[in-house]
Amino acid sequence: MNPAQWLEAILHHDIPLTQAMDLQVLHWQNRELQLLLPLQGNSNHTQSMFGGSLYSAAVLAGWGWLRLRQQEAGLEEGHIVIQEGNIEYPLPVISDAHVICPPPTEAAWERFEKLFRRRGRSRLQLDTYVMVGDQTAAHFCGQYVLYR
Amino acid sequence: MNPAQWLEAILHHDIPLTQAMDLQVLHWQNRELQLLLPLQGNSNHTQSMFGGSLYSAAVLAGWGWLRLRQQEAGLEEGHIVIQEGNIEYPLPVISDAHVICPPPTEAAWERFEKLFRRRGRSRLQLDTYVMVGDQTAAHFCGQYVLYR
Repeated sequence: MNPAQWLEAILHHDIPLTQAMDLQVLHWQNRELQLLLPLQGNSNHTQSMFGGSLYSAAVLAGWGWLRLRQQEAGLEEGHIVIQEGNIEYPLPVISDAHVICPPPTEAAWERFEKLFRRRGRSRLQLDTYVMVGDQTAAHFCGQYVLYR
Repeated sequence: MNPAQWLEAILHHDIPLTQAMDLQVLHWQNRELQLLLPLQGNSNHTQSMFGGSLYSAAVLAGWGWLRLRQQEAGLEEGHIVIQEGNIEYPLPVISDAHVICPPPTEAAWERFEKLFRRRGRSRLQLDTYVMVGDQTAAHFCGQYVLYR
């Protein structure tokens, strides 16, 4: 089982709503996570993507990114929670969408990891993007906390 | 069919994910809307409420509020979209929760309605609250746009 399959199994098992959303983990490459959010099952009254589905996929792209990076870094004793999230919707989504979480800067990760190892609690900002082709349809910014 | 039943039928018909969430409309009284979000079906890996479900219920409390108020005010030709949302999660939710959208100030509504009638497009900020007993477990602030 590769990391993408492992994460998808966790999401579908731990968060049943991701099954109703049919949220899929496409890949984890060069520390970038990519999810697929199908329009089917996530539409609203205008047959475009429901804003709550877009937020859910976006917050989970960040959560999944941190879960995989946490494992790589050997920080397995930590639990992840979301403290605050902000999302902007510049474009409606009328097709399946890719949801991408690129890595934060190496400096931001190092500060985060050092503080967690010292204090057992640390906060990381992650930005994720809902993409339709090469256009950003939604931009999410989340404050995630890892704690022992 | 009372306004709460009417709104619940619309939500379940237009946004299928609300059925998976088992989101219920409790009441519309004195221009306050109250929804019920059951823990069952909306939980995460810690058996508390998934942050995406909390956001979805919170954004829909605002959407539903505007949909009902729009009808009362005779602005039926308008369509509602969400432009931006922000949510803070001060407390984990480990039971069913009530999601409340109180009315904005009368002055804010009047500005909003006047601008929509004049220009066919207007923006309204709505704040909604996820309550567990008398404690606020999440606070959502959304920018909604009504347009012709």
